[in-house]
Amino acid sequence: MNEKLVKNAAGRTVPVEINGKPVVPYMGVGKFHPQGCCHAPRIPSNMDYPQDGNKLVPSLKEALIRAGLRDGMTISTHHHFREGDLVANMVFDCASELGVKNLCWFPSASFSCHAYLLKYLDDGTISHIEGSMNGPLGRYCSEGRMRKTAVLRSHGGRYQAIQDGDVKIDIAVIGAGCADAFGNANGVNGASASGSLGFAVADAQYADRVIVVTDSVIPFPCIPWQIQGNYVDYTVKVDRVGIPEKIVSGTTEVTRSPDRLLIAEMTAAFCEGTGLIRDGFSFQAGAGGTALSVGNFFGDIMRKKGIKARFARGGSNKYLVQLLEEGLVDYILDGQTFDLDGVRSIRDNPRHVMTSPFTSYNYHSKGNFASLVDIIILGATEIDLNFNANVVSHSDGYLLHGIGGWQNCLFGKTVILPVPLFRDRIPVIRDEVTTLCGPGELIDVVITERGIAINPLRTDLIEKAQGLELPLKSLNELKEEAEIICGKPQKPVFTDKIVAAIKWVDGTVIDVVRQVVSE
Amino acid sequence: MNEKLVKNAAGRTVPVEINGKPVVPYMGVGKFHPQGCCHAPRIPSNMDYPQDGNKLVPSLKEALIRAGLRDGMTISTHHHFREGDLVANMVFDCASELGVKNLCWFPSASFSCHAYLLKYLDDGTISHIEGSMNGPLGRYCSEGRMRKTAVLRSHGGRYQAIQDGDVKIDIAVIGAGCADAFGNANGVNGASASGSLGFAVADAQYADRVIVVTDSVIPFPCIPWQIQGNYVDYTVKVDRVGIPEKIVSGTTEVTRSPDRLLIAEMTAAFCEGTGLIRDGFSFQAGAGGTALSVGNFFGDIMRKKGIKARFARGGSNKYLVQLLEEGLVDYILDGQTFDLDGVRSIRDNPRHVMTSPFTSYNYHSKGNFASLVDIIILGATEIDLNFNANVVSHSDGYLLHGIGGWQNCLFGKTVILPVPLFRDRIPVIRDEVTTLCGPGELIDVVITERGIAINPLRTDLIEKAQGLELPLKSLNELKEEAEIICGKPQKPVFTDKIVAAIKWVDGTVIDVVRQVVSE
Repeated sequence: MNEKLVKNAAGRTVPVEINGKPVVPYMGVGKFHPQGCCHAPRIPSNMDYPQDGNKLVPSLKEALIRAGLRDGMTISTHHHFREGDLVANMVFDCASELGVKNLCWFPSASFSCHAYLLKYLDDGTISHIEGSMNGPLGRYCSEGRMRKTAVLRSHGGRYQAIQDGDVKIDIAVIGAGCADAFGNANGVNGASASGSLGFAVADAQYADRVIVVTDSVIPFPCIPWQIQGNYVDYTVKVDRVGIPEKIVSGTTEVTRSPDRLLIAEMTAAFCEGTGLIRDGFSFQAGAGGTALSVGNFFGDIMRKKGIKARFARGGSNKYLVQLLEEGLVDYILDGQTFDLDGVRSIRDNPRHVMTSPFTSYNYHSKGNFASLVDIIILGATEIDLNFNANVVSHSDGYLLHGIGGWQNCLFGKTVILPVPLFRDRIPVIRDEVTTLCGPGELIDVVITERGIAINPLRTDLIEKAQGLELPLKSLNELKEEAEIICGKPQKPVFTDKIVAAIKWVDGTVIDVVRQVVSE
Repeated sequence: MNEKLVKNAAGRTVPVEINGKPVVPYMGVGKFHPQGCCHAPRIPSNMDYPQDGNKLVPSLKEALIRAGLRDGMTISTHHHFREGDLVANMVFDCASELGVKNLCWFPSASFSCHAYLLKYLDDGTISHIEGSMNGPLGRYCSEGRMRKTAVLRSHGGRYQAIQDGDVKIDIAVIGAGCADAFGNANGVNGASASGSLGFAVADAQYADRVIVVTDSVIPFPCIPWQIQGNYVDYTVKVDRVGIPEKIVSGTTEVTRSPDRLLIAEMTAAFCEGTGLIRDGFSFQAGAGGTALSVGNFFGDIMRKKGIKARFARGGSNKYLVQLLEEGLVDYILDGQTFDLDGVRSIRDNPRHVMTSPFTSYNYHSKGNFASLVDIIILGATEIDLNFNANVVSHSDGYLLHGIGGWQNCLFGKTVILPVPLFRDRIPVIRDEVTTLCGPGELIDVVITERGIAINPLRTDLIEKAQGLELPLKSLNELKEEAEIICGKPQKPVFTDKIVAAIKWVDGTVIDVVRQVVSE
């Protein structure tokens, strides 16, 4: 390997080229100024599409053939069905049957259900993945088994990459709960309804060819048409597009762990005490067990104070829907629907609004909503003493999670990471994070069961928190407490081989993941 | 004048260059294959926009200065307020105060209220108009007084021109009934609510700079956000953005003329008798007095037959809303809201859906809805013996109307023109239309008070109409009947000077308008 490496603005050693294409090393928050123009799709014409609007083709394979599937293409799919997704696996079954090789898979995220695709990574049908990897595919990547370098982006970064032409999608395959033959599609109706299809919006707009796959074809018009048929080349009806019982993600119940509940309670108390929770405020709590509990505590505070939130950002779930229906939040601005209450609400309640990564997260736009949110609750696998955080790899070096909207949300007004001090006797606060995903300057507060650390940059918060009966500590103090209990953690051992690049929201490379030396 | 002229596929003599830019002469329906890529706006970055999302600037003039207004730019506005629009006049007042000259005004349509701008055409603030002209501005153009050649496009053609980069908008100024400081905007709330803002969607997406002007600023988020703030550079609050009582267009009552009522009744009888009105059918009736009556008769037929329409295309109005609320149509797909019942319905009824010319009309997309509509009812100023029709000029040669969605709707399954045999003793059916706007091959039926002419291409309709008690005639017979009453009409007299070009839906030039020799 003779790739050229440089130190980026975060002090991380990164390549200047990935998979043969030049990349820009991270330059700092708000430092990289994009040049040039957005990706310009070729101009289509109605003359090449059926006058009666019927774009149905008999099978996904047929649609892929007509879309010109061939070696080396970039194929996108979406994670709206989460663990119940059947579309991505079907796509690469077809590719394999057709003998097509060396495809770049560009999912909005991948899950354990996609471990099925390991065989296609093995046999070269898929050369590599550009997209968030949850679980087995990340492990495969960490082991250095992927033929090319993986690229991980945030949800907003994925939109940015498509919009800017960093990634040119040859064929987008969009699974939808419901569609009409023209290709208008949504995720709120049909047996496999999964909620918002926001992650596929960029793909529909910018991909060369677009295929909609559904198990429920209704007469035109399919309303709402979150995916507009005017962007769609082919529609395909399959027996089953997703497994409904697996669409609901596993992390949709509030935590029952006493420690996690304590963290959630401290988080709520901190937000209340520092005045962050005021009439007309906004928040994004997220979907993990702790985060869900935080949202519930926020509800209690609003009821007590007789105030309401102007909006909450989804990932929506039954708890958030409850707040909406109770009138405690005016709007849910939803990127992703995590349970069936969320699906029902986004279908029926005009105050439960579908968003896309364009509206919410795209850094290369004229502003996005992330920076308008008052309180952002996020997780992290590791945090260093400068508040830098990791969200993709574990401390053993394995890449096991996607970035999701995490990086994008860091632009919120107050970003809080409620995290346990240690997990499985591995401390969360470290001298150095294994993988840098988010710069510490954007992370305001770390809340653990043993204390709260406020970023020194947030003198306003430090001042407001002084009088509160909350255990304020430094990150160093928290780290030492953990190390007394768990011991000083070992660093993982890596080879030199770069297996994945982590993009920042502006498309620059903030860090890389290296091959883990397995024991 | 030494411009090069050629005969296009419709036999019309048109230039190969307009205002110094090459154009393609009309090649026939579905014959011109676009090459190249869509217009690519420059890539913006959040770093250049306020982190708190507050894009409010103190005045429209200030916004125009910040947007870099200068000589020769193309400035777009929209006609959602119709005769009550105040935005376009304000924009050019600012331009005039700033001494900026030679602007191209690119409205989605202009109305009599914009006669105010004649002084800016006179003094060179505005060099010319690219957009539909209703009334005084058209007359001004016909008199040869505009400094450059006007270009008229259909609503879909306007989207196509923006998307394809035929027209590059430097600054889009979008008037909206309601907006937030971030620039999210809609037309369904606020004192100046006018309904859908669909005509401004392309401008928001593709213009270099976007300014939202409103008289009602609400806290983020302004929902629905038909215009997404992520595309918006500046927001401006003005005292009044539109005159509510003039927003409602004049043509929103059913006709009381016995002749027009007879035409409407014959139209409905024809559609019923030929089986076009069946369960699940779709129609677009339009907003003129006759068309509104046709829609009402359709309602009667559906009630009688116990059937319903799957969708109706708006221009919505109280009659169409009544059909929706009665359950006689499943959906209104609305491009433009013509009265306050329409505004109320599109705000409150999820089955009353906002569309844009992209979804409905853009010929350079992967299909649009126009070709999915079963029955399209349109008007015309003139029709020739080959069913070719004119919708922009009168028989005296004056350009007095815009194209609107008329050309786009010609792609509907059955296109019917219910027209009087003559207006003010001027016959509608002529040897030759003054201006060719729509090729006769796309026009299926002409219905007058004295008889119905079916396009010979529609042998299916001719067959189905045989047994009906309806007066079937040829266009020639109808023309002769009119001429017996009114005499053979005079042709208008023109100079050689081309004052306006008429674009076809694919951006080619189907005809031109020449300067009228005034008496």
